[in-house]
Amino acid sequence: MDEVAPTPRTRLRRLPGRGSYDRSTIHAILDAGSICHVAFALEGQPYALPTSYGRRNDTLLIHGSSASRALRSLRGNAPVCVTVTHLDGLVLARSVFRHSMNYRSVVILGTAAEIVDADEKREALRHLTEHLIPGRWTDARQPTESELRATAVFAIPVNEASAKVRTGPPSDDEDDYALHVWAGVIPLHLAAGDPAPDSRLPADVRLPTYVAAYADRMAGAAEPRTA
Amino acid sequence: MDEVAPTPRTRLRRLPGRGSYDRSTIHAILDAGSICHVAFALEGQPYALPTSYGRRNDTLLIHGSSASRALRSLRGNAPVCVTVTHLDGLVLARSVFRHSMNYRSVVILGTAAEIVDADEKREALRHLTEHLIPGRWTDARQPTESELRATAVFAIPVNEASAKVRTGPPSDDEDDYALHVWAGVIPLHLAAGDPAPDSRLPADVRLPTYVAAYADRMAGAAEPRTA
Repeated sequence: MDEVAPTPRTRLRRLPGRGSYDRSTIHAILDAGSICHVAFALEGQPYALPTSYGRRNDTLLIHGSSASRALRSLRGNAPVCVTVTHLDGLVLARSVFRHSMNYRSVVILGTAAEIVDADEKREALRHLTEHLIPGRWTDARQPTESELRATAVFAIPVNEASAKVRTGPPSDDEDDYALHVWAGVIPLHLAAGDPAPDSRLPADVRLPTYVAAYADRMAGAAEPRTA
Repeated sequence: MDEVAPTPRTRLRRLPGRGSYDRSTIHAILDAGSICHVAFALEGQPYALPTSYGRRNDTLLIHGSSASRALRSLRGNAPVCVTVTHLDGLVLARSVFRHSMNYRSVVILGTAAEIVDADEKREALRHLTEHLIPGRWTDARQPTESELRATAVFAIPVNEASAKVRTGPPSDDEDDYALHVWAGVIPLHLAAGDPAPDSRLPADVRLPTYVAAYADRMAGAAEPRTA
């Protein structure tokens, strides 16, 4: 098993049985999501802000406006944390105390390196776009030089990271199994509705295959998208 | 309109038109979710960790093991940030640059006060349980004294907070509307599958009405749960 090495900061102390440092587990959780939460500190105040992301091998990519205060705060090797979480279900135990959730999450610690070279930035944006919805990059109008300049892109190595996963039924205290209380799991997943074409779309522009495929895959996802 | 006062830390600088300090907007976004991301710093490293939460009026409640390093780090008025995000759709614009997401998010800044009194803790756990799934608290076995001691509960005031919401179609550059590129929104929502009873559940324990109602409401949520 190919693992990232746990560090004192990523070694799981609470419920370590749920933890993993396996690269393929971490990558699968990252690949199944569309948004992450980026944690950084500004003047001593921690923030967690949602944003989209992409993965390129062992690197997580995020982007935003060059004017973004949050992104600017990442410069100069400021410590950052990126967390991706999928909520897979509510776990209703017989006792309130044993209630839980099924989930898959990845926490990445490190620093962010800004990508400044225009070609590298364009390549990173291709990964970000294809992560969002595969097939989109070659279909949409690609960034101009000035759009590239207006976009800040950062790369965060996925080498100090951990995954945490809970699956399965509730785990009740042995005595509680005799109680007449319904227990089980309500599975949850992110689902897509029908794609809604923009009102200004010409009538002869048909829904692309890759958009339909994405929506179909997400519409039918009665189970989490990764094991 | 009842607003929380924006502070220099919560006043939105990027795309302020998407921002709101309206209490009812903030509360609706909080009430529609099941998990938040809590940002805190440990030895200079920011972390964002997912956890469940509840709301009691203008207070956000979180809980966990009394032994949790993350929760212990909140003691002593350490600055904290709690973020709740709902992803409502992928926004496919004609240009890569204008791609976006529809979402509703709330960012709360402040400090967390630990609830130590046993009765107050029990009452907070009632709110947390009822936030997860209304009706559960009176049905499940309630916490014992030792379970209460093993649980740490923190309250974070929702008075330095902002909401950010994007809805609607892509916003393309005027020239790009002539392009033959499909554009529109793929709506996304958190959906529930059929509740899965625990394998050790006695045959005569039926699915409670409130569980069925929760699952039905979430299964049919083709639209986001709040406007």
